[in-house]
Amino acid sequence: MKDFVIIGHKALTTGDFSLNDLPGSAGRMDILCRCVNSALFLSHGMRRDINVHLVLLGEPDPGKVVRFNGEKLKYLNPDERSSGSLIKKALERDAIEYETQSTPGVYIRRAGLEDLLNEFKEAGRDIYYLREDGEDIRECEGLGNDAVFVLGDHMGVTEEEEAIIDKVAKQTLNIGPISLHSDHCIIIIHNELDRKEA
Amino acid sequence: MKDFVIIGHKALTTGDFSLNDLPGSAGRMDILCRCVNSALFLSHGMRRDINVHLVLLGEPDPGKVVRFNGEKLKYLNPDERSSGSLIKKALERDAIEYETQSTPGVYIRRAGLEDLLNEFKEAGRDIYYLREDGEDIRECEGLGNDAVFVLGDHMGVTEEEEAIIDKVAKQTLNIGPISLHSDHCIIIIHNELDRKEA
Repeated sequence: MKDFVIIGHKALTTGDFSLNDLPGSAGRMDILCRCVNSALFLSHGMRRDINVHLVLLGEPDPGKVVRFNGEKLKYLNPDERSSGSLIKKALERDAIEYETQSTPGVYIRRAGLEDLLNEFKEAGRDIYYLREDGEDIRECEGLGNDAVFVLGDHMGVTEEEEAIIDKVAKQTLNIGPISLHSDHCIIIIHNELDRKEA
Repeated sequence: MKDFVIIGHKALTTGDFSLNDLPGSAGRMDILCRCVNSALFLSHGMRRDINVHLVLLGEPDPGKVVRFNGEKLKYLNPDERSSGSLIKKALERDAIEYETQSTPGVYIRRAGLEDLLNEFKEAGRDIYYLREDGEDIRECEGLGNDAVFVLGDHMGVTEEEEAIIDKVAKQTLNIGPISLHSDHCIIIIHNELDRKEA
């Protein structure tokens, strides 16, 4: 599996939001919805070897992780409302320390960035942090099929989060000469991995 | 300028649709909305040297082109509803042979794929057609800052359209070993051009 971790600093942690206003009242949930799309969709199907972890840090109950698992996922369409609706359903569940499945292939639990990254580290996974000053992904040797990629949202990554990431990350990576939205970065990461695997 | 042409085979040609149902009642308008996002957004701003031409071929009045011009564009946010709303406003105008501006940087006129591509050809522009069996974009020499890229939607490109494209296209290009949605292809095209220009 490849895993994408996206930090949603303002993303609501209750299901009490409108699908008609994902950018506003849902705390830029639209960004996370597009990341789900970028990470999972192929032209004719879905990438089954992918997990997407949305770290939700907005009000009213920050510190929840919604995971989309490509292998088991159902009922996801490419549009933002579709992923938004599955996130909303997950957030309508009580989040406890262990994952609860809200719809097929979508899970919620109470956790933060540090918990999540430490689990990857303990599992021996290679963690890559996407940042403008990182090494060019095209030059990166040994980027494997079980890599974990950590990305920020429109607010980037805070200093505190960066300290957490730096403790566990194998490397910082850059996707090109111009800074892009996280969902766009995910496309370029996939393209590079697809080419390396081809 | 770089120009992206996306064919929306089922995309509605009236503004009489709901922003709450872009994939359904609006004829997969969500695909075109995501292409607008991919073509225009940077992390901190907008690509100003871009035109996006949406060729709308759905009912009830097929053969309209909505153009987004990065240089003049205002009121566009990254979410699908935002581009959907600007497309809807454009479609609420009467479409005539010449462009009418519906909102800053968004224009509508009555035209089809052939009209549009012939204009590019007459202007001496290099037209590239994105297709799985094309040449790898990374190997493509001479890909310039004034290229035109033609992409299909979820239905691909019909034989008739392909005949029109083949008459004017300089080359067919491929973005990688796996077939992707058009909005994802646009990200990879941009990344390649960004790298060539860097």
